[in-house]
This record gives sequence, C-alpha cells and structure tokens, in this order.
Amino acid sequence: MSQTPDSAVRTYIADHRAAFLDDLAEWLRIPSVSAQPEHADDVRRSADWLADTLRRTGFPTAEVWPTKGAPAVFAEWPSGDPDAPTVLVYGHHDVQPADRADGWGTEPFEPVVRDGRMYGRGAADDKGQVFFHTLGVRAHLAATGRTAPAVNLKLLVEGEEESGSTHFRALVEANADRLAADVVIVSDTGMWSETTPTVCTGMRGVADCEVDLYGPEQDIHSGAFGGAVPNPATVAARLVAALHDEDERVTVPGFYDGIAELTDAERDLIAELPFDEEEWLRTAKSHATAGEAGYSTLERVWARPTAEVNGIGGGYQGPGGKTIVPASAHLKLSFRLVSGQDPYAIEAAVTEWITARIPAGIRHSITWGAPTRPCLTPLDHPALQSVVRAMGRAFGAKIRFTREGGSGPAADLQDVLRAPVLFLGISVPSDGWHSPNEKVELELLLKGVETTAYLWSDLAANWPRPAAAGDPSARPAT
Amino acid sequence: MSQTPDSAVRTYIADHRAAFLDDLAEWLRIPSVSAQPEHADDVRRSADWLADTLRRTGFPTAEVWPTKGAPAVFAEWPSGDPDAPTVLVYGHHDVQPADRADGWGTEPFEPVVRDGRMYGRGAADDKGQVFFHTLGVRAHLAATGRTAPAVNLKLLVEGEEESGSTHFRALVEANADRLAADVVIVSDTGMWSETTPTVCTGMRGVADCEVDLYGPEQDIHSGAFGGAVPNPATVAARLVAALHDEDERVTVPGFYDGIAELTDAERDLIAELPFDEEEWLRTAKSHATAGEAGYSTLERVWARPTAEVNGIGGGYQGPGGKTIVPASAHLKLSFRLVSGQDPYAIEAAVTEWITARIPAGIRHSITWGAPTRPCLTPLDHPALQSVVRAMGRAFGAKIRFTREGGSGPAADLQDVLRAPVLFLGISVPSDGWHSPNEKVELELLLKGVETTAYLWSDLAANWPRPAAAGDPSARPAT
Repeated sequence: MSQTPDSAVRTYIADHRAAFLDDLAEWLRIPSVSAQPEHADDVRRSADWLADTLRRTGFPTAEVWPTKGAPAVFAEWPSGDPDAPTVLVYGHHDVQPADRADGWGTEPFEPVVRDGRMYGRGAADDKGQVFFHTLGVRAHLAATGRTAPAVNLKLLVEGEEESGSTHFRALVEANADRLAADVVIVSDTGMWSETTPTVCTGMRGVADCEVDLYGPEQDIHSGAFGGAVPNPATVAARLVAALHDEDERVTVPGFYDGIAELTDAERDLIAELPFDEEEWLRTAKSHATAGEAGYSTLERVWARPTAEVNGIGGGYQGPGGKTIVPASAHLKLSFRLVSGQDPYAIEAAVTEWITARIPAGIRHSITWGAPTRPCLTPLDHPALQSVVRAMGRAFGAKIRFTREGGSGPAADLQDVLRAPVLFLGISVPSDGWHSPNEKVELELLLKGVETTAYLWSDLAANWPRPAAAGDPSARPAT
Repeated sequence: MSQTPDSAVRTYIADHRAAFLDDLAEWLRIPSVSAQPEHADDVRRSADWLADTLRRTGFPTAEVWPTKGAPAVFAEWPSGDPDAPTVLVYGHHDVQPADRADGWGTEPFEPVVRDGRMYGRGAADDKGQVFFHTLGVRAHLAATGRTAPAVNLKLLVEGEEESGSTHFRALVEANADRLAADVVIVSDTGMWSETTPTVCTGMRGVADCEVDLYGPEQDIHSGAFGGAVPNPATVAARLVAALHDEDERVTVPGFYDGIAELTDAERDLIAELPFDEEEWLRTAKSHATAGEAGYSTLERVWARPTAEVNGIGGGYQGPGGKTIVPASAHLKLSFRLVSGQDPYAIEAAVTEWITARIPAGIRHSITWGAPTRPCLTPLDHPALQSVVRAMGRAFGAKIRFTREGGSGPAADLQDVLRAPVLFLGISVPSDGWHSPNEKVELELLLKGVETTAYLWSDLAANWPRPAAAGDPSARPAT
C-alpha cells in the first residue's frame, strides 16, 4: 500500500475542521459525569450520542454495550483485507465532575473556543482524544481513496474510567472475541509538551494490600504495660522501615526478579527529554526528589518498581496525647510494578516477607486488591514504529518516548486480549485534567486527527505479513 | 515515744467500725464525677462533706480550696512537737463516671455491703483509701492517749484526679508553703494482692510529644510521583523503627544516662513477688511479653524507661486502597522515665535525634506536652521503713515492695515540695477501678486504718532528729 499523501490529509482536515469542532462541542455539552448518580442519564446519553456519531462517521457497527454500571461504546470497521492487522482504540466518554464555582471561567458544560483552545469538561480527558479518531479515519479514507480503513479498526470507549473502571475488566473478558486485536492504541494520555511531541510506550502496574496488625485486645495503659508487650503500631512502622534498604531499593526477596534493566539506549532516550527538575517538583507539589540510588527521577517514576505507604494508622490520632499501647495498626501499601514483574508473584513474596516479620503476640492479616499488570511495548515493535512515523509527519518534529508511572485499565486490555498497548495522546500538562478550565489545544487536536490519518496506512503497510507456518517470529511478541 | 499498743488500736477500730462504714457510705452517695459537668455541684458537695468530716475527726484546720476546675480539700493537724516530721497525705475525692446500665449489679451511687465488701463507685478509688486516714488518726490518738498526732499531719484531697488533674500542679505551686512536708504519702494505689501486702516505692515519669511530618503539599498520585519523592509516612515509620535496637533498647543518645541500674537486692525483691506471667498477660489483654533484653516483665514495667508509639497516622485510612503519596504523617510518642532521668534532657535529646533524621523535602515539627517526673524512694529511707513496720503489724505478714509503671500527680508533689513520695494503698486488683461493681474489701480497708494508727507513732519515733548545724545528713535526701 502506498503512503497517504500528506497534503490531501491536511486539505481534508482543513475542510472539515469547523464541523468536527462543532460536533465535539455538542458532545462536551452532555455532562457525562460517571461518579455522580444524578448524571447517570447523561452518561447513557453520551454513549448513545457517540454510537450515532460513529455510525455517521462510517463505522458499519457501533453499539452501546451496557455494564452493571455505565455503558461503553463499541464500534468496528473491517478493512476487507484478510491480512490487515486489527487495531483496537481505547478511550472513555465519561468525565470528571465539574462545577462553575470551582474556579471555571466559563460554564464547564458550555464549551467555548478562545485563543485556539476549546474549554470545557472532557475537552482533553477524554472526549477530545476519542474524537480525533473520527475525523482521522475519514481523512485517511479521503486521502487514500479507500472505502474502508487499511486496518481492521475497532473502538472501545468506556463510561466508567473516571469512577474506577469498576466493570471494565468484566466487559473486556465477556467480549474478548469481538475485541480481539493485534495492537491496542490508548488515546487517554498526554505528550511531554507542545514543543516536544512524544509517544508513551508503557505504564507501571500496581499491586496493593492492606496489612492489619492486632496486639492487645483493646488499647491498654502504656504506664502499666508499656515496654513489656509488643506494640502493633511499632510493628507496622518496622515493616515499613524494613521495606527499603539504604539505597531505597525494596528488600523483599525476589522483588526485582525478571525485570530487564534499562538499556543504555533507553536511558539515553529518557535523558534526551527536556526535564526540568524544579518544574517537576512544582507539579509534584514536593520539596525534594528521593528514590532508588542510581536512577534519575524519570527513570524512577517510569521504569522502576516501588513500594509505597499510601496510609498508616494506629492508636490515638486526636488532639493532645493519650498514653496507650494501641490495640491495632493498619497499613495500606502499594507496589508499582514494571515489565517483567508478575503481580501475583509479588503478592506472594510480600506476603511471605511480612508474615516472617510478625513478632510473637501480634496477629495479622493481609488483604490484596485486584492487581493491574505493567505494560511496556518494545521500542522496535512495528506498531510503535508506525506511530512514531505517523506522529512525525503530523507534527513535523522528532518524536520522543515517554512512559506513564501510573497504572490503568489499558493493562486489562493487554492482559485479556494478549495484545501490546501503545499510547497515542495529544494532550499537554497545561490541559487541566480533573481541574477547572480544562481545555484542549485545537492545533494539537488536529495533529491527532492527522496522525491517525497517516497511521492506519503506515501500520497496514509495515505490519509483518503472515510468514510460513511454524515461524514464531512472524508476529511481534506481546 | 513509745509504740502504740496494737490491742488498743484494734479495740478502738472494732468499736468505731460501724460508724466509720456508715460515714464512708454517705460519702459514696455523692456522685462526685469530675469529668461530667452535670456533676460539678456534686463534686463541690463532696469537698464540703469531706472538709466537715475532717473537722469532726478533729483536724483543727479543714478548708475547701477552689481551683479553676473542681475544688480540693486541705486539712492540717499539727503535732505540737517542734521536732516532729511533717507528713502530707494525698488522695482524691472525685470519682470515675458510673452508670447502672454499664453492668453494675447495684446502683453505683447507692453503696451496698455484701460478703465483706462495700460496693459503690469510689469505694476503692479513692474515697475508701482517703477515708481510712480519718479513723486511723483517731485510733492513733486513742491508743497513745495523745490529743494531737505524733506527726504534723496534712491532707490534700484533690477533686480532678479522674479528669486529668488539670489544675493540680498550679494548686500545689500556689500553696507550696502550706503543703510543705518531709514526706508525702499517697493513698491512691494498690497492693499486690490480698495475701501479698506491698508498699509501692515509686512511679515512672513520662514525657510525650507529637511529631508532625509534612511532604507533598497535598496527597499526590503514587503512580505519577511515587518512588521519586520522599513519603512522610515512610519517614514516620523509619523514626519509630529506629527508636529501638535489636535488644529493644532505646537508641536516642543519652537516653539511659543517669539511671542507676537495678541492684541485685532490688532485683531479688521484685523476683520474690508471686508473679504469674499468664495472669499478667490476661490483665494486659496481650498475647506475648516483649521488651528490653535482660530484664523481667516487672522490671521492664517498673524500673526501665521506654519509648512507645501511642498513635501513628498518615495518608488514606478508609476502606479499600488509594494510590497516593500522603501529604503528611503524625506520630504520638511517649517516653516513660525512671529515677535519674530528667524529662527536659530527654525532650532535648529526642528532639535532636528526630531532627537529625528528617530527610530533604520533609518539614517537621515536634510538640511536647507537660512532662511528669519519675519518683522513687530508696528502700532505706526512714519513712519507708516506718510504713513497712506499720503495715507489717497491721497485716501480720511480710511486706514486700512494688513500683508503679504509670505516672501521676504524686510526681508534682515530689517536684514542687521537694519531698520523697511513698504509696500506701490497700486496694487489690479485683477492686474494679474505673469498672462496674467497684468495691473495697472491708478487712483490707480496716488494715489501712490500723496501719496509719501505727504509722504516725513509728514515723515520729524513728525520724532522724535534727543534728548539729552543718550536718547535711541530718535529713534524708529528697
């Protein structure tokens, strides 16, 4: 297949830009706040609106998929080419709560275009980033003269991302056949900055637990008994303190097993980014960096696993003092995981490590939440190469690489569908996700459109064709 | 002075026992609950009742001393002998709250005598133990034929002990001249058991602080930032963990400075007590002993200082998990102190130790409460010897020695009046202090009467007479 001509794509986008922005504004007017029960109808309305719009875009199939919570939207547009790769695009149509009184300059659900930006809740997170795929596929068809995309294109747009994706994994598992894909492209992230376009190649996973420690059967007098019985708050603190060594490495045996160390090439790519530590600390609202010896801040956040105390509590926490040995103490721990770590192996290792450290006279329990796996797509993966080329053409700039330190439902897609996950996002840090005056930069939004217009052709052209049977290198590993 | 004849004392007590118990019951009917504002009038009524009763007992002076809270009662009965020692007896006339519905078999403020016990709130803690001094001094006079006690006898009975002794130190400081004494006898403690009469020789002191640790300016995302900024909950835990070494000794430099190690004789006296570890653990509602290596449980509680976490908190403590790096964490620490430790030196040492352990990016503050000094009267102190002889005659048994692990207002008396403190209590562990069905054993109550009837004569007879001027050993050291 030939490359899509850039000029044809740009002309098509310029011609349809106004209608595209009008449609996005109409969607933003639906306050699809999934966390607020009073907006349940709006979330359903948002799903219906999107399914209609995807049908109008040309998707032969566009369905609203109910869940036990808010509905998702699924759409599918087959390529017609039996050898074409299948791409699943992920996004979400629900939004964070928003109230004018929180500091919005305009009504959050009355989108306004000003100074090249569209302001409104969901403009960047995530309706804008879902929506660039609609004009993108139309531009792709117009510029190539095709009647169907060069790839088998699927979209899954969930309705509960902002309220915990509670039913997402079950939805994916129940529909794994229809969602099956060679690669997943998540459009729910951002780029480094307006001037440094980037593609994200992975997210950390997470395993989290609560550790409950019980000592005396009730709070007891620290004068009468203190110094002669074990104190569960002390035990909790000692567990936390023992989790790291002096180099801030996690001490749980086996914790780092299976992790591929960062290569020099990967470290160079991270070091290329124009990282400003002062600015990063302002974003982190923190006053110093810290962490595992031998790694930079970005390496620590993106490429290294952690053990973090999310909460600790035990004994008296009110005003003044109370001379007790507390009856119990509680820890909330979470472990960010990177590629190569299996959450269940980490859970087992941490459980064993904690259990071995519980002294006589202290009872304990450990409760694990549902883990999220890490995901990381290798830099030489053909889909990643396609995304980089497509973005490079759209942005006219070198595309660099980032990762996400957080964890998300994308990992469920990777996990259930056994497909690599890439992150194609055009949002920038100033877009104000979850904050008042959320906006999207229109120029970047249209670069997103343009990227996908190139991407499907590039992916189809460069995807490894099926090889002779028995050749295990025919498809990229997931 | 000659010894008081035992038979005369016993006869006097037998003759006046009924009226004595009637009077005590009358006092117990006044619900002098200092912690409950609706009982403020009852606390005042209790003070008036006691002052009247002390005047009827013969005290030439018996005054109600107002405080900014509940009133105390002060009474004084001079010996007439210019060389007689001065004894200040301490107790309290307020009581813990009590409600029939909490599990009382009878009305808590309607005392009942049954099976040789008087049941009622305050029977043991502390009205009964204050009250044995009234019949005691009468028996002392009757048996010796004196018209005034052999010692200068003072009583200070506070009204806020059960609500924190908030104004007690100020009261003592303001009246230090009138309260001046050679020895303080506290009747607000207990004995080892009915069959093992004991005298308590000291209490631990306490210094307590809150440590506030601040990291990010708000809770931040543990995915986006975790592993790259300091976590104040981790810092809190590390402080707690570093407080003790592997032998459970406190690591703060200087912490043990000035403490006299237990002598073999002192350890033998503690080991003589019929200590049952299983029983002690039941009382402690704990499932194992623990503590400083090289010491027994009683030694740990009575004679060794501690560092205890009374409370710890930081980050998310609700149900489930929350992937944050917390903005702050908070510690409540208390340090039990033993003779030889200066609370202010300990505060300075702990403050310096904590401050040196705060990493970059964490702000902290340390707030100390008002400390209580430890008190300990040497075994060879003449007043202690007198108490042991007097109790021995009353109980017809060998008197052994205990200490209290807790801390109390007695230390304020020692501190302000510069007088040694002894603890003469006849209560036993089954008396149910602060619990439903509080009671006092009448036989033990009358042993208390009998002890004090002997004690004032013994103390006067064996108190070191003033020596030649310039002899610093003339009076026991305080």
